[in-house]
Amino acid sequence: MSHTVEILCVGTELLLGDTVNTNAPALARELSALGLNVYYHTAVGDNPARLTQAVRLAQSRADILITTGGLGPTCDDLTMKTVAAAFGTEMAFRPEVADTIRAHFLRYGRGNMPENNLQQAWLPVGGTVLPNDHGTAPGCAFEVGGMHIILLPGPPRECLPMFQTYAVPYLQKLAEGVLVSRRLRMIGIGESAMEERVRTRMNELTNPTLAPYAKEGECELRITAKAGSEHEANALIAPVEAEMRALFASYIYGVDVDSIEAVVLKLLQDKGLTMGTAESCTGGLIAKRITDLPGAACAFRGGVVSYAVEVKQDVLGVAPEMIDAHSAVSEPVACAMAEGARRVLGCDIAVSVTGVAGPDPDDRGNPVGLVYIALAAEGFCVAQRLNLGTGRARIRIHAANRALDMVRRYLT
Amino acid sequence: MSHTVEILCVGTELLLGDTVNTNAPALARELSALGLNVYYHTAVGDNPARLTQAVRLAQSRADILITTGGLGPTCDDLTMKTVAAAFGTEMAFRPEVADTIRAHFLRYGRGNMPENNLQQAWLPVGGTVLPNDHGTAPGCAFEVGGMHIILLPGPPRECLPMFQTYAVPYLQKLAEGVLVSRRLRMIGIGESAMEERVRTRMNELTNPTLAPYAKEGECELRITAKAGSEHEANALIAPVEAEMRALFASYIYGVDVDSIEAVVLKLLQDKGLTMGTAESCTGGLIAKRITDLPGAACAFRGGVVSYAVEVKQDVLGVAPEMIDAHSAVSEPVACAMAEGARRVLGCDIAVSVTGVAGPDPDDRGNPVGLVYIALAAEGFCVAQRLNLGTGRARIRIHAANRALDMVRRYLT
Repeated sequence: MSHTVEILCVGTELLLGDTVNTNAPALARELSALGLNVYYHTAVGDNPARLTQAVRLAQSRADILITTGGLGPTCDDLTMKTVAAAFGTEMAFRPEVADTIRAHFLRYGRGNMPENNLQQAWLPVGGTVLPNDHGTAPGCAFEVGGMHIILLPGPPRECLPMFQTYAVPYLQKLAEGVLVSRRLRMIGIGESAMEERVRTRMNELTNPTLAPYAKEGECELRITAKAGSEHEANALIAPVEAEMRALFASYIYGVDVDSIEAVVLKLLQDKGLTMGTAESCTGGLIAKRITDLPGAACAFRGGVVSYAVEVKQDVLGVAPEMIDAHSAVSEPVACAMAEGARRVLGCDIAVSVTGVAGPDPDDRGNPVGLVYIALAAEGFCVAQRLNLGTGRARIRIHAANRALDMVRRYLT
Repeated sequence: MSHTVEILCVGTELLLGDTVNTNAPALARELSALGLNVYYHTAVGDNPARLTQAVRLAQSRADILITTGGLGPTCDDLTMKTVAAAFGTEMAFRPEVADTIRAHFLRYGRGNMPENNLQQAWLPVGGTVLPNDHGTAPGCAFEVGGMHIILLPGPPRECLPMFQTYAVPYLQKLAEGVLVSRRLRMIGIGESAMEERVRTRMNELTNPTLAPYAKEGECELRITAKAGSEHEANALIAPVEAEMRALFASYIYGVDVDSIEAVVLKLLQDKGLTMGTAESCTGGLIAKRITDLPGAACAFRGGVVSYAVEVKQDVLGVAPEMIDAHSAVSEPVACAMAEGARRVLGCDIAVSVTGVAGPDPDDRGNPVGLVYIALAAEGFCVAQRLNLGTGRARIRIHAANRALDMVRRYLT
């Protein structure tokens, strides 16, 4: 039997747009890996009547319901009792859950537990407690007439670990067949150009399927197969993957990887090389992205954000005459920044970015979107001119991706 | 008559979790400012049958439907015709729209338009074209039996400008009464501590209402009033705002502001001061956040990401003996980093961060979450020790917020 999951996120902050719903996509990725179909995500406010309606709708079109949010200690945290009531399930006080919550307060030195936290110890009768390793609100899984209900807390750093550690084993027992995806991630080609090249194959293929996705500053081609086992699914994927790798060779920076920065860090670690950055228009974005990764310290030495022209001169040693002659947004300055960064940071490879992110052209008349990136290594420097269109945030992301991809190409 | 809006986001990439749905919250914020109630957000895949079902459901519980996504040129871009069909509306080819799309291709030097783009020139009969200033897919607004349908493209940088420029004027004619919110944004106090202090008032107040929100590294108290005019709503909010400002004075970094970095940049501009950064564990995050803002160049000089200890010494001039004696994660090193950054970057104020973001303690045994921040100005340096708990991304965001708030406090 094939299962259908509905994701229902509860919280007025979602409806008002104060919180971006990151739980729904994160859960969806995990559910898809389990071979479970998700056809709808719904967000609803902290309103018992509308929440009840949404639960009944899910009941009519899914057999697994996963909710997030509304499990906290405050008076508008109503999910647990509202969902239980919608399924006609009573609530019961769980003394052992109350003890866990008290212990959490003691362990984190938060003092005595405010009384309202005890509300979190009331769970649907017969429900399985899903422990919360990162907060006080426990989750719960229960079954009513063949429908499985899983209630998770709202904060992503509580919701996702709870799902992975405690809900996945519960769901694995229900799943049948697997969905396996391979993601070919590319920089330097647009989504429509990519789709144009694979349109015919997209229409021909049914298992695996082929689907293009645009992401900010990059795009992705996904090959997805459904089969009885992971092994069978992989066998279906392999020939199509080989075909696509041949077609998009120079654009593919990785397959099933987290990000271009993760690919670059791994390459640096494997080769025992260190890297640094000199950033003007990206303003620290590249350094930030590399240091988002745990373990960056072994390969990333540091960076210089040379926003002001004097910082390019005084810290990176770019000659004032060069800036006068070519402007700060130019190929020679990009190279001098990368070489300067390599020298002052003492690293094997340095990458630089200088450009105009906008909203206005610079004082030398360079247009918005004009960006130079450069890479310096021992006895070597190469630069590239890019025209990245408009939109400050977009230009910065594209420039950072292209600079990181330049490092990847150099290392491979 | 009070209107109810449903937001329906179309795209299999949303259901699979490959794309985080940022359109729904962004539209929700705008709709709430228009005084329009949003009770449900739904995401559905590129599947005509389920999309039709979702449209019929919206028809039963809302009188304005806003869709995003599925307006592109590819064969799974089905929203326009599926929604039109669900409302029994025919489609017609609009030659003037086709001309606009062709012109877009020429303007951006993308060469001849691929033929599949003409699909985007078919719109529901009688519909109003919503021009797309940032892409090829036009949006559309049409009305059927008192229900208003607005179709927007999926990419956020096309969707949101189209909504603001062309859909808001259309919706303003329908709205009645206004909802006005005031957001008191705070750093240095947790959500539950904040809620504890305002619980009684939250329960007493009905118009305006009071609601606490947790965000990563900060929290927010929102005061929301509904009234016939903005002026009346403001009059309802004023006394409650004064009361809350008095209660949380030292934590509030701004009211109705975009971010702590925007507040800091504004203060620097107003006072004609410049700033720089020296970042270790935040790895460029502070510089990145400040330079996210257009106009950062007039006050932000640059930064040093001193990830490796040698960069702290060689670029920032921190004495090796000081690092030996106190470790890199210490108050004296935080101060020396800030003073060094101020000197080498030539700025009035420099802020520094050094700490352990994890996942592991550092080689001197400093625990994960221990962070020092410091601020240096003319003849002045102050440091602060923070214990920020666990979670690499979380620690980095908290540390950046606290460092930026340190600058704000110094400047006010």
